[in-house]
Amino acid sequence: MSSNEIKIGAYLLERLVQLGTQSIQGVPGDFNMGFLDLIEDHPSLEWIGNSNELNAAYAADGYARIKRTISAVVTTFGVGELSALNGIAGSFSERLPVIHIVGVPSTAAQGAHSLLHHTLGDGRFSAFVNMSKEISADSAVLKQKEGVGEAIDRILVSAMKKARPVYLALPTDLVHATIPADALKTKLKYDAEPNDEAAEKYVLNVAKKHIEQAKSAVILVDACADRHGCIAETRELIEKSGLPVFATPMGKAIVDEDHPQYGGLYVGNLTSEKVKEVVEGADVLITVGSLKSDFNSGNFSYRTPKESTIELHSDYTTVGYSHYPGIGMKGLLPKLSAILQPDQARRLEETKTVVPKFQNALPSDSSDVISQEYLWPRMGRFFKEQDQVIVETGTSSFGMLEAKLPKNTRWVSQVLWGSIGWSVGATLGVALAARENKLGRTCLFVGDGSLQLTVQEIGTMIRHGLTPYLFVLNNDGYEIERQIHGPERKYNDIPPYDHSLMLDFFGDQKAGKREGKSHEKDMEPSKKQFYRVQGRKQLDELLESDEFAKPDRIRVVELMMERGDAPKALKRQAEATGTANKYE
Amino acid sequence: MSSNEIKIGAYLLERLVQLGTQSIQGVPGDFNMGFLDLIEDHPSLEWIGNSNELNAAYAADGYARIKRTISAVVTTFGVGELSALNGIAGSFSERLPVIHIVGVPSTAAQGAHSLLHHTLGDGRFSAFVNMSKEISADSAVLKQKEGVGEAIDRILVSAMKKARPVYLALPTDLVHATIPADALKTKLKYDAEPNDEAAEKYVLNVAKKHIEQAKSAVILVDACADRHGCIAETRELIEKSGLPVFATPMGKAIVDEDHPQYGGLYVGNLTSEKVKEVVEGADVLITVGSLKSDFNSGNFSYRTPKESTIELHSDYTTVGYSHYPGIGMKGLLPKLSAILQPDQARRLEETKTVVPKFQNALPSDSSDVISQEYLWPRMGRFFKEQDQVIVETGTSSFGMLEAKLPKNTRWVSQVLWGSIGWSVGATLGVALAARENKLGRTCLFVGDGSLQLTVQEIGTMIRHGLTPYLFVLNNDGYEIERQIHGPERKYNDIPPYDHSLMLDFFGDQKAGKREGKSHEKDMEPSKKQFYRVQGRKQLDELLESDEFAKPDRIRVVELMMERGDAPKALKRQAEATGTANKYE
Repeated sequence: MSSNEIKIGAYLLERLVQLGTQSIQGVPGDFNMGFLDLIEDHPSLEWIGNSNELNAAYAADGYARIKRTISAVVTTFGVGELSALNGIAGSFSERLPVIHIVGVPSTAAQGAHSLLHHTLGDGRFSAFVNMSKEISADSAVLKQKEGVGEAIDRILVSAMKKARPVYLALPTDLVHATIPADALKTKLKYDAEPNDEAAEKYVLNVAKKHIEQAKSAVILVDACADRHGCIAETRELIEKSGLPVFATPMGKAIVDEDHPQYGGLYVGNLTSEKVKEVVEGADVLITVGSLKSDFNSGNFSYRTPKESTIELHSDYTTVGYSHYPGIGMKGLLPKLSAILQPDQARRLEETKTVVPKFQNALPSDSSDVISQEYLWPRMGRFFKEQDQVIVETGTSSFGMLEAKLPKNTRWVSQVLWGSIGWSVGATLGVALAARENKLGRTCLFVGDGSLQLTVQEIGTMIRHGLTPYLFVLNNDGYEIERQIHGPERKYNDIPPYDHSLMLDFFGDQKAGKREGKSHEKDMEPSKKQFYRVQGRKQLDELLESDEFAKPDRIRVVELMMERGDAPKALKRQAEATGTANKYE
Repeated sequence: MSSNEIKIGAYLLERLVQLGTQSIQGVPGDFNMGFLDLIEDHPSLEWIGNSNELNAAYAADGYARIKRTISAVVTTFGVGELSALNGIAGSFSERLPVIHIVGVPSTAAQGAHSLLHHTLGDGRFSAFVNMSKEISADSAVLKQKEGVGEAIDRILVSAMKKARPVYLALPTDLVHATIPADALKTKLKYDAEPNDEAAEKYVLNVAKKHIEQAKSAVILVDACADRHGCIAETRELIEKSGLPVFATPMGKAIVDEDHPQYGGLYVGNLTSEKVKEVVEGADVLITVGSLKSDFNSGNFSYRTPKESTIELHSDYTTVGYSHYPGIGMKGLLPKLSAILQPDQARRLEETKTVVPKFQNALPSDSSDVISQEYLWPRMGRFFKEQDQVIVETGTSSFGMLEAKLPKNTRWVSQVLWGSIGWSVGATLGVALAARENKLGRTCLFVGDGSLQLTVQEIGTMIRHGLTPYLFVLNNDGYEIERQIHGPERKYNDIPPYDHSLMLDFFGDQKAGKREGKSHEKDMEPSKKQFYRVQGRKQLDELLESDEFAKPDRIRVVELMMERGDAPKALKRQAEATGTANKYE
């Protein structure tokens, strides 16, 4: 190959490195191993090697959340890629840029419609890409060398711009084929398109009038402020406007929760009375990156009328009933902040008087039971700045809403897609990203039910020497399901695991460093520790111990909790969901 | 509801019961629990409650193989159903009738395109059914009561006739709505269409001439003889024709392997010389239910020319280059047998002289290492009539081909789809079916790599009191991948598990019978035993012990084997696959 030629697989990897990826998730398969060679030999990439493809996709999702860039997952044709789909669909739904790279049979074998293993046996090689298209922002099925660089660049830009997954089919015979490398000298551009100046000016004027005419206004921060790279702009809006600010469940911790203008979470009618008063009493509601799903909005129970709402999105804006396509928040936010600044001081005074204080208040009862009411504010006091807090869909994702998190904590939850088991895979990705970015501790909260779906990924964590805290809420089954339907039904039961054996099962102490050429460069596996915690006192002691606070090993903390107990917000949501299902 | 009305969910269950289903696989989710109520309350159905949806789909696949009827898996909208797709696609590829029943949001919520949890967040409620259509023979998305009974009947008949999965979307508000029950009095008909008499007569004549003109002919039995319910007809053909018979990997054990006319496996150029001589030396090759995939045919290396081949399929026949659509083997086989019977005695004499003896020959070396060459014939001697033998894609599925199995052993492998991890889920389904049908023991052979993908399903086995033998080949990683590519690559490594802890981790002894109303009717969980086997002598002793032979507990037998060792057939196949991939 000439000096300015590069293998197609290597071209793709260089682009990923340029975008900030350092770890690649996936499972080996006979149609992707030629590509895995390139990853393993790459000086600045780490191949993770997950326990299965679904877990790999979950890990990629978690990794993208922390790195705030594209994440990659590699699978093999048919069998591998289909196992990953639920995870990829979750990244689509929750807006995370992920590239799903699928090693597929050689172009020759595909052209001949051969009856290969890993096929449907009917020669339809397009079936799997058709399936993935439903959950991808863009896709490319490589068929010859020509145009490959452009195709790779196009889908990577799509993923970054749209904050959605993309799909790449990479045939075995093209991985090591070469293409010109020149394009790599120019980095990919994926900034939001600038707004049309005249239109933007018009929208600003309308918004300004709206806010000036109002006696009161509040800001509501949601997930897409993060997903579309507008956190700095959102924080600026808060500072310069002096307005009260609240967050949705998906937007939690984007605003520092001890910010003087921050009043806590707003979730429609699931919200505390004090917060409801302020949010629903305001004349104008300014939402930033809103994603109004059922669980993110208290089953669509916002009270502010449409005509009093200003919505700022990545690629459109609404003011009352008026819709302005193409006016995105990346450009609009700084200008809106500037417009609002003159009244900052006055608004700030008002804000101080109305905003409720959000804090970790423990219940006053003297019981030693680790109740839901107790656990979450107690955990809130445990976290430190720069920690990662991952909550499983279930009691954890509802309960932890009630905990106040320190500044710069990363909140990782899956409120919209809500796939049980996601959090365990995601924790692997989060822990890898936190290690790469030198962030704080990684803490997972998962129920004994959800844990079972993806439990083997703990083996991958140990193998890579990761040291997350895994808090397992043992309440004898699927509690979120019991809250919605069938509290005494057997179908909400699970097999009882002995969690004390978990770390030693998934990381054989005795195997230690194994022999053989391929094991020479193995990482030192994690040290491990298990704790079974029966009551509040024991939990308190543990959380206050300096030794425990140091993330020098992987820890499983089994919290023995009562079946039937659930966070208040979940109880109310479950009732609404149960009613909407209309079984009778 | 009037006396001849029945809930839609109950109608579906009655149809499944009529077809012979007794166990239903799946995972609870908020959109399917109204349906699970009906399953849990049904007097003759057992809800299994798998550890995740992929494992559930694998279990349904295994269950369908043993029961030889439709198997059901229940998931929830989006998150649940997508996790099952790889398993369902496997059943499509390998031709098993499975109904995937998905609990979906109420028709009202779907009509309003609500931004519900478990959706893609863009109102596309059709995305998931579109994905499933690619891997389904038929599907029904219920939208109103009218025509529901007919739709359910139609897809069940499609599944049975085509031996493929079908998809049913069941909205929450329709599960308990009622429809007329009268149709249930008539059982579903799914027999193969009778052949056109005149056309069939013509085909028989052509086939007869073909065979009469040949000096020698052989029969090759393949998977679809089983999948399309033609085992009795195939056995009759063998008896009445007196011809030599061989099997493909996917057709193994359909013909009793100690039948005097049986000569072993034919896998193109992966076959032993003796078998090749007879099969490739024959003037006519009669294939029954052929499925000529790469791994099932030694990479398409059959030597018999097309003009000398007679293919009998479920819905067409070929004789040489002539293709006869609509002439299916169910009707044709008995008539072909009758035509061949007059020459039976003469052919039988010849057959006896040419057919090689297929037997469990142990290697003659005195090593104590459990080599691949030793293991498979040794295991062949362990099995008894009516046992189930499940082999994972990998060294096991290639190795066990070399073992002679006793009469009426059920051979369970996934040669075409070849999804690693499938066998563990499938073992759950197989063990349930074997218990229901009062068959013999269930024996799984899986490598330490493949085991990790789906290992948690062992918890479900213990919970349901099942007692399979789980033979785990510990050879330090993905050996089949190492054979194909990258023998020293780290990407073929896996985290080392301590298999001695596996059963106690997934089935907490101390938890025992748990308290609470829902646990009152819990099954007694399995007794458990673990064995680590280091050498041949130890294995011998174990396999010869009467205590071990009795399936009164779930057993994990860890076989310590050497990395780099592989069955001969796999070595040859891996070479062919590696070459076809053309990485350089």
